[in-house]
Amino acid sequence: MWYNKMDRLYCSEVEGVIESRGNRIFRELVRLREKRGRDKSGLFFCEGERLVRSIPENIIKYYVFRESVEDGFIEGFDTKGFPVYIFSDRLFREVSDTVSSQGVICVCEKPVADMGDIFTKKPEFIIVCEDIQDPGNMGTVIRTADAGGAGGVILTKGCVDVYSPKVLRSAMGSVFNLPVVTGADAGAVTELLKSKGILTLSAHLRGTLTPYEVNLKLPVAIYVGNEANGLRAETAEKTDMLIRLPIIGGAESLNASVACGILIYEVVRQRGGYEKI
Amino acid sequence: MWYNKMDRLYCSEVEGVIESRGNRIFRELVRLREKRGRDKSGLFFCEGERLVRSIPENIIKYYVFRESVEDGFIEGFDTKGFPVYIFSDRLFREVSDTVSSQGVICVCEKPVADMGDIFTKKPEFIIVCEDIQDPGNMGTVIRTADAGGAGGVILTKGCVDVYSPKVLRSAMGSVFNLPVVTGADAGAVTELLKSKGILTLSAHLRGTLTPYEVNLKLPVAIYVGNEANGLRAETAEKTDMLIRLPIIGGAESLNASVACGILIYEVVRQRGGYEKI
Repeated sequence: MWYNKMDRLYCSEVEGVIESRGNRIFRELVRLREKRGRDKSGLFFCEGERLVRSIPENIIKYYVFRESVEDGFIEGFDTKGFPVYIFSDRLFREVSDTVSSQGVICVCEKPVADMGDIFTKKPEFIIVCEDIQDPGNMGTVIRTADAGGAGGVILTKGCVDVYSPKVLRSAMGSVFNLPVVTGADAGAVTELLKSKGILTLSAHLRGTLTPYEVNLKLPVAIYVGNEANGLRAETAEKTDMLIRLPIIGGAESLNASVACGILIYEVVRQRGGYEKI
Repeated sequence: MWYNKMDRLYCSEVEGVIESRGNRIFRELVRLREKRGRDKSGLFFCEGERLVRSIPENIIKYYVFRESVEDGFIEGFDTKGFPVYIFSDRLFREVSDTVSSQGVICVCEKPVADMGDIFTKKPEFIIVCEDIQDPGNMGTVIRTADAGGAGGVILTKGCVDVYSPKVLRSAMGSVFNLPVVTGADAGAVTELLKSKGILTLSAHLRGTLTPYEVNLKLPVAIYVGNEANGLRAETAEKTDMLIRLPIIGGAESLNASVACGILIYEVVRQRGGYEKI
């Protein structure tokens, strides 16, 4: 069955269906499911047609297809000469993170983002995430930062791994669209940003100013903290200003990724980016 | 063990630890885990200390505690004369939705929200959700609408059940803070809103105006659609205007609850609600 379909692929290398759990590719994917495996190898994998299609060619290592890959997807899919491996349905299910996977995985190298990359965009517009733990929030922040035209996102060591399947899924390809610096130290980041004349703003429940009262046309970095605890005191203290979104009704706070989204789009509004649409 | 702790509760009725799956309270909770059971009985349940404490007294039916309820929680918890049932740890685990539950559940009646309730706030500010399927998004939209001071939220028949444990958890008590009308028909809602002179605005990728260019001090209703498909064409067509958030970077779209949050806070900004903080 699969080989008929695979004839329609532009593949350089199809070895036959892999069914053994001892296979080296299967074992690599199992390792890449865990952060430790991703850290050690510098690799990660993406699942699902939409996400896989968004991967830049220069980081692709190889593809893995499920034996019973969905017909619609495979039609004319260009693997661009990268190796292709076929997993039996059972093996694929073992590494796949999603129920609704279209039967395609791409293994790639982590895109290298240097701290310098995020200063390219002028005036600077940077998001700093401290200890964001929920993969959905993490991915959504990156997606919104991308949509709002931020120059980059900096994640502290305490953030969930950006290359985990759930983060990648909710970021919807945005990790490939803007530099994401990981494993940062919040204190060092603040010093660097300040030394470059960037206004550092902490989203904080004890903020005295709203973002509507701050000139966000200036070079800015917006700091958002952990879902339950917010920013660490020592981080917030070092930034130039605490800002707070007004709460009109009975809710005690906003979801972290929603609050971040509102702040990002206040920058967009003040900078008049919308005038171009 | 439990009875020592329970002595410290202000309880009217503690029958002893329920261990049988045949028990009527256990069977009711099992039914309430499913939408069908909630629809049939008009009841639902909340889990976790924070959420349980936010329930208004007039809708509480009874409490269920886990035998090994966490000590910190139980200290001085006032059950206000409502019945209390104690489940064995095994039984509790079977009905509990969260790993981190503090061992407390409250069964309550669905708060009755009438369409009329959402027009109380002037100028009107209403969120209409069509076919929102993700429980996290649904809860987050309600939480943000509450935070932003909306007069109410209207959900169409196609939305996920607002009384499902996951929606309740991400709404964080906001379902008790503002009227949420469920099971609505989008067409009928639009006619009603227009007849009351409320500006109906569809969040739509094909919108021509940004929210920054619309006078949101007017009575407004903002429509948000399904995560994958957006608003139905027949719904968007009937509204007064399609509005769109500008996308500056490479992302194709925004997360539904983030987009809704940005629009809600643009209403807050234009109406100057932040001047009061």
